[in-house]
Amino acid sequence: MVNNKRVFATLTPEADSDWKLQELVSALRHSREQTHHIRHRGGVRELPSLEALEVILGDLSSSLFPTHYGPSDLTDGSIDYFVGNTLGNALNALAEQVRRSLRFRPQAEERSPYPLDDEELLRDKALELTARFAAQLPEIRNLLVSDVRAAYAGDPAASHMAEILLCYPGMRAIMCHRMAHALYRMDLKFLARMIASLSQRETGIDINPGAQIGASFFIDHGIGVVIGETTIIGERVRLYQHVTLGAKSFAADEKGMLIKGHPRHPIVEDDVVIYAGATILGRVTIGAGSTIGGNVWLTQSVPPGSSVTQAQMRSVCEDDGARAAQP
Amino acid sequence: MVNNKRVFATLTPEADSDWKLQELVSALRHSREQTHHIRHRGGVRELPSLEALEVILGDLSSSLFPTHYGPSDLTDGSIDYFVGNTLGNALNALAEQVRRSLRFRPQAEERSPYPLDDEELLRDKALELTARFAAQLPEIRNLLVSDVRAAYAGDPAASHMAEILLCYPGMRAIMCHRMAHALYRMDLKFLARMIASLSQRETGIDINPGAQIGASFFIDHGIGVVIGETTIIGERVRLYQHVTLGAKSFAADEKGMLIKGHPRHPIVEDDVVIYAGATILGRVTIGAGSTIGGNVWLTQSVPPGSSVTQAQMRSVCEDDGARAAQP
Amino acid sequence: MVNNKRVFATLTPEADSDWKLQELVSALRHSREQTHHIRHRGGVRELPSLEALEVILGDLSSSLFPTHYGPSDLTDGSIDYFVGNTLGNALNALAEQVRRSLRFRPQAEERSPYPLDDEELLRDKALELTARFAAQLPEIRNLLVSDVRAAYAGDPAASHMAEILLCYPGMRAIMCHRMAHALYRMDLKFLARMIASLSQRETGIDINPGAQIGASFFIDHGIGVVIGETTIIGERVRLYQHVTLGAKSFAADEKGMLIKGHPRHPIVEDDVVIYAGATILGRVTIGAGSTIGGNVWLTQSVPPGSSVTQAQMRSVCEDDGARAAQP
Repeated sequence: MVNNKRVFATLTPEADSDWKLQELVSALRHSREQTHHIRHRGGVRELPSLEALEVILGDLSSSLFPTHYGPSDLTDGSIDYFVGNTLGNALNALAEQVRRSLRFRPQAEERSPYPLDDEELLRDKALELTARFAAQLPEIRNLLVSDVRAAYAGDPAASHMAEILLCYPGMRAIMCHRMAHALYRMDLKFLARMIASLSQRETGIDINPGAQIGASFFIDHGIGVVIGETTIIGERVRLYQHVTLGAKSFAADEKGMLIKGHPRHPIVEDDVVIYAGATILGRVTIGAGSTIGGNVWLTQSVPPGSSVTQAQMRSVCEDDGARAAQP
Repeated sequence: MVNNKRVFATLTPEADSDWKLQELVSALRHSREQTHHIRHRGGVRELPSLEALEVILGDLSSSLFPTHYGPSDLTDGSIDYFVGNTLGNALNALAEQVRRSLRFRPQAEERSPYPLDDEELLRDKALELTARFAAQLPEIRNLLVSDVRAAYAGDPAASHMAEILLCYPGMRAIMCHRMAHALYRMDLKFLARMIASLSQRETGIDINPGAQIGASFFIDHGIGVVIGETTIIGERVRLYQHVTLGAKSFAADEKGMLIKGHPRHPIVEDDVVIYAGATILGRVTIGAGSTIGGNVWLTQSVPPGSSVTQAQMRSVCEDDGARAAQP
Repeated sequence: MVNNKRVFATLTPEADSDWKLQELVSALRHSREQTHHIRHRGGVRELPSLEALEVILGDLSSSLFPTHYGPSDLTDGSIDYFVGNTLGNALNALAEQVRRSLRFRPQAEERSPYPLDDEELLRDKALELTARFAAQLPEIRNLLVSDVRAAYAGDPAASHMAEILLCYPGMRAIMCHRMAHALYRMDLKFLARMIASLSQRETGIDINPGAQIGASFFIDHGIGVVIGETTIIGERVRLYQHVTLGAKSFAADEKGMLIKGHPRHPIVEDDVVIYAGATILGRVTIGAGSTIGGNVWLTQSVPPGSSVTQAQMRSVCEDDGARAAQP
């Protein structure tokens, strides 16, 4: 009803026909009809909304850390009322997005687990899943507190917790991820991916919602970090900017399409530090307590306590290169 | 008339004079007068507006993919009305931005092709150029559909088209680019650059609007990708995060300023895959069907069907290094 | 009073109790009580606001470059009124944020320099610091003009100053940085960091507000650049995307926590160019006029006029690697 869009100056042709709108609308309809191989069956096709999810994420964050993300006039007396009210609104709005996302099954799947015409069943399922998500929020908050503390301990430039919660993109990314991962585990993968997408847009950090990440996780600087869907990360792990935990793409290409969900990303055990620009590819294991140096390119497992530098890896790679050149 | 800005708490000094505003305003005017070597001739200097372009981009996207970017209550019966209305508004607003941008010629150019004082001619030209842009939208949509399909085919984690259109930064970047490139080809380079800048801010992908990119293009993850102005990319090309298709900067520095528009970026032929972190510099040609491995640093052409790995390039580079050390 | 939030569709359970809100609020309060080791003393805990700072940054930018960031209907006659009014509002709003930030001292510091209960003293101090910041704005503008000119001279693709001011993320980043650095030098480190965080979110460029950067600074493309707290950069320095000027992290790890503010990042002298992806770590000095090639990994000083390429560095690194392998 209310149009919040800002109004900008326009330059209008003398006749609307100057844009040839009718032809354009018709050509665009034609293009849609050719490309939508799955036509929509008559009704309204309600996609989940990125804009709604952005507001929901903000409200959930304020509920978890009201002092930091809530309004500045909260008192010890009013804070619980704020949390209850904000959280209730967020869950009502999330339930609607969950309902919409239940209709979106992977195109490759033959059958949906839900009868998509049974609106009442979809609503009940959406309310049930949202309640299950809500019940996990206190545990998610505890994990996030461990992450704040890891950032404070791991970055000599961090001067207090509020700075980390308000200013660190790595903190924002793990907060979004822990919520997205909870949705992913309830098979709400589309919603989870949308949250990851909003997080990436803001932080430059790309964590697939499928990644399993233990407590006390810290990404410093963070820009350019990519963490793949089947990655498993232990506790007290620290990453720096431009680190990739990815699939070994060459192998994938030779085999054709990968089986979905197939474990193809690294396992990083407890207490590992991975410095800026390091790239670790494939289902390899980085043993507990290891240190991976900056810009290292690693496609093999290393035992616990390893310290891998660029120079060491280069000599290994060159052996590979020599072999590749003399097959 | 309406002030949409949120109001925040302030702390006001007892007298305005405490900020020494008059002195400040005067010092800032002095700084402007010293630095504006081209003074504006008395009238209003209307720059194109990033905020307006952001709304226009949103409306154009909704017109091209109304199911995905439009409101959620569209039906088969109402969708064409939405498209026609949204597109008409977007074109009226774009025409005004085109008119403004016609005044901004490269500073190096001696003469503008348009008599800048003839307001009527500028308006007519703006309407004409906007109509030419509008006429290209169906073709742009078809290209974008080929890009969505390439993403679906190329990423095992993609589960349906809606996920790609809503969540993939690479999709957003190529959508903005195909519109910006259409403006660039009509010599509306400032507007094109502004759109590229909005896209980069949101996606972390930096595609110069001059780059020519064929159908079925897919950037996976995408953060940190840089594609230069004179790059030419064939069909069915796939890039990963942190790939640079750039100019060979060292050569440029020795020659002084490059001639504008001089071909200085790579040609990437059909069906090439370039993995994360690879850097390809200069007017080299990557032959059709080649695969460029992660982190490869490449400043020479490779024939069709090549498979270039980091280890191979290193031995080449080291030969160069040895020569450089013993000239 | 006014709720600017957009309203989205919701799906509400039949009874509020379905979300088990009361249990959730109680569990979240419990989590807060366990983790806030420093409880707030009864009153209102007003954190500085990122949203307010974002508006303030916009107003300060419009005051410095009204033609480019101000409204499009400014005339030579009205421009000073716009600047005075906008700047006055921005300073009033900034003073409030300064007041709030004065309460936030590093957790490690034993004593605050200000008696935190003396509200009047905090207000006076906030007004004084804001006035000192304001007085630096003309000098900051002059530095920014030198940066615009450096971008125009350094990028053959730049066609006029307006394009640089509106479209270049590197320009936005240095504008935010020069303001953040002024606050940092007045020991307003939390506010400075918040501004850097807003800048990073928009540009993908991460400059710690402590970094000292000379005139005529230009970052081209910019995404992924990281510049650490104690970095010192001379005049006419040019960086490309993905350059890191960082601390030598390995050394830090062996010593345990670094002393805060300890010089640990590079010194880059006048007229240095650092190409894409180069990583320079530790308190090393890059001599005046040097060129550091793309992807170079450098942890040692180089004399003035050096030209360092990846191949040269590799041979050095491999010597290190060999030594490391045969200790």
